[in-house]
Amino acid sequence: MKKRIAVLAGDGIGPEIMKEGLKVLDAIAKQFNHIFDYKEALVGGCAYDKYGHPLPDETKEVCNNSDAIYFGAVGGPKWENLPPELTPERGALLPLRGTYNLFANLRPAIIFGPLADAASLKSERLEGGLDILIVRELTGGIYFGRNKVKTLTLHEGALQGNYAVDYMIYSVPEIERIAAVACDAAMKRNKKLTSVDKANVLESSKLWRKVVTDYVQSHFPQIQLNHMYVDNAAMQLATNPKQFDVIVTENMFGDILSDLASAITGSIGMLPSASLAKTGFGLFEPIHGSAPDIAGLNKANPLAQILSGAMLLKYAFGLNRESKAIEEAIMKALENGYRTADLANKTTQEGKILLTSQMGDKVVEYL
Amino acid sequence: MKKRIAVLAGDGIGPEIMKEGLKVLDAIAKQFNHIFDYKEALVGGCAYDKYGHPLPDETKEVCNNSDAIYFGAVGGPKWENLPPELTPERGALLPLRGTYNLFANLRPAIIFGPLADAASLKSERLEGGLDILIVRELTGGIYFGRNKVKTLTLHEGALQGNYAVDYMIYSVPEIERIAAVACDAAMKRNKKLTSVDKANVLESSKLWRKVVTDYVQSHFPQIQLNHMYVDNAAMQLATNPKQFDVIVTENMFGDILSDLASAITGSIGMLPSASLAKTGFGLFEPIHGSAPDIAGLNKANPLAQILSGAMLLKYAFGLNRESKAIEEAIMKALENGYRTADLANKTTQEGKILLTSQMGDKVVEYL
Ligand SMILES: CC(C)[C@H](C(=O)O)[C@@H](O)C(=O)O
Ligand SMILES: CC(C)[C@H](C(=O)O)[C@@H](O)C(=O)O
Repeated sequence: MKKRIAVLAGDGIGPEIMKEGLKVLDAIAKQFNHIFDYKEALVGGCAYDKYGHPLPDETKEVCNNSDAIYFGAVGGPKWENLPPELTPERGALLPLRGTYNLFANLRPAIIFGPLADAASLKSERLEGGLDILIVRELTGGIYFGRNKVKTLTLHEGALQGNYAVDYMIYSVPEIERIAAVACDAAMKRNKKLTSVDKANVLESSKLWRKVVTDYVQSHFPQIQLNHMYVDNAAMQLATNPKQFDVIVTENMFGDILSDLASAITGSIGMLPSASLAKTGFGLFEPIHGSAPDIAGLNKANPLAQILSGAMLLKYAFGLNRESKAIEEAIMKALENGYRTADLANKTTQEGKILLTSQMGDKVVEYL
Repeated sequence: MKKRIAVLAGDGIGPEIMKEGLKVLDAIAKQFNHIFDYKEALVGGCAYDKYGHPLPDETKEVCNNSDAIYFGAVGGPKWENLPPELTPERGALLPLRGTYNLFANLRPAIIFGPLADAASLKSERLEGGLDILIVRELTGGIYFGRNKVKTLTLHEGALQGNYAVDYMIYSVPEIERIAAVACDAAMKRNKKLTSVDKANVLESSKLWRKVVTDYVQSHFPQIQLNHMYVDNAAMQLATNPKQFDVIVTENMFGDILSDLASAITGSIGMLPSASLAKTGFGLFEPIHGSAPDIAGLNKANPLAQILSGAMLLKYAFGLNRESKAIEEAIMKALENGYRTADLANKTTQEGKILLTSQMGDKVVEYL
């Protein structure tokens, strides 16, 4: 198989973990006889520094001509005080999601067996591990409402002084298409789906709940669907996460809950994500950030980046065997006691604490 | 001191825990020579059943003529499918907050020493206990935006099909007044304040961050202020909660984070809250819900309700000594091993598992 991959390493630790991600993809290409044609491009703060924009035309061009986007991480203190439309987040990440219609964000929250000790919850609450898939709507809701609004008028005297507004907007088709993705995932797993909203307060959540309910009832009656308010969902994740299998929720709730879920696993440096369009095109990135404090030190954990590569192979190219091979190689490295600094603890054997590049090598070795 | 208290017990376990709350207030009145004049009124589902509205005029009248509102809990499956404006939440709880301008919601997330084992996080992450105060803005943001909007038009073709919108709106004075409450609290504690927003995406959050920063800088430069994105805050609460002291945040983030924080303590049946107006008028309620599944069984934990009474005495009436007395009595009951069913575990001594009414008696005994 021959595929073109846009490689957007970004800022902070982005470039160094991306290097390991590509190292592993290269090994896969060799082993399974594929050709991955990488095109690198700047994104985020580094792109701003060079081109004056975090998502320059050059980079869009590269993405337009690719079969998938392999993304590192963007942002850092240096670019925090730019005008919003030039920040790495609002100027690059959100436009990428919007431009390519990456409406379905898949965020697994998994405890890797050998890392179970690192979980933040008491072990009796995580007996047998944890394997949750959060399906977050990624191109609607309050993140993108502003672009849709032409005019707004308030009632006279409703507010004194200067004010600011954000719009949480959802349409029926937007909810239906993410419900479809969530159902698809649930059918491949345990046919159990929790939809999270705030239907006791929000209009958009009321619509969300109705559309999800209707969709599941008419297309997947065999799925066991339940609804939960977002405040309760946060509480349940922090106390009894094993009750969840697939969670589907709107953009901002998904942002909060997926970070929460990943924090609970204790494996935050381990978790990948996929952002998918209907066409199968997608962007694949670790859920962690650009960690400017440790950038350039060759000590960042590259495993989330590498696992994002595994998701890319699976979701963008349908290469399930190759994807599994990467996951298994990582599991072997962990089982054999290898750790990056963030994962190390007192039980880690001397000599098994690896640098970023060494961890990449180790994964390749076990492939 | 003579004070009038509106007693709104509500639905589910509301009435039975309120009974214990009043029992304790009565004991305080006797001991410290006060007169508390209670006026009971229906609120929530039970009010709807009787009057056709969850917040009937009779109840408003009672609140109007009181010095504070002592609130139980509202809601239950029976009333979930009413039209939104008649549900206990949107028809009673939110209007109460709005009508009385209860913009400042104080939610302590505390681990009670004797209950430390119940916390959901590993104990090494909670060494020395936990004592966070969440200051949640309660009458603005996405909960109340709808009321302020007269007209909205979208760009043509922005959305296909039916849609729903919610408005997250904040004005400068709304942010300033909650910043003031948070600073006040921080000054009485450790002069450490974390403001939570999503300023990398939301306009209202950008304004929030700016106003909070300006307010702290010009009025309380001695307070150590830091800012955190809401997704990161959820993550940090779940992994390293002890870094927080006072957290200030907007309405919906506060809803989610305060439930999360309380879940982490493991003491969810123990946590009270105060919702305050500028005038000192306030509503005091447990943070837990109406627990319809155990209603009427005399086994609910009344301590959050009783502690809400302690907050009422402190914040509405300035009765600090009396408030402390209640807290100390509860601590003694816990230290002596008394537990309601929700708090009991294998180490609880036989005979020390108390019913709702017995726990109320026990607190009075230790007063
Ligand atoms: C950086 C930020 C805009 C982004 C988001 O909120 O979506 C991030 O938190 C994420 O979850 O990918
Ligand atoms: C019942 C609901 C409307 C309410 C809220 O979201 O404010 C509750 O969750 C709370 O936190 O008091």
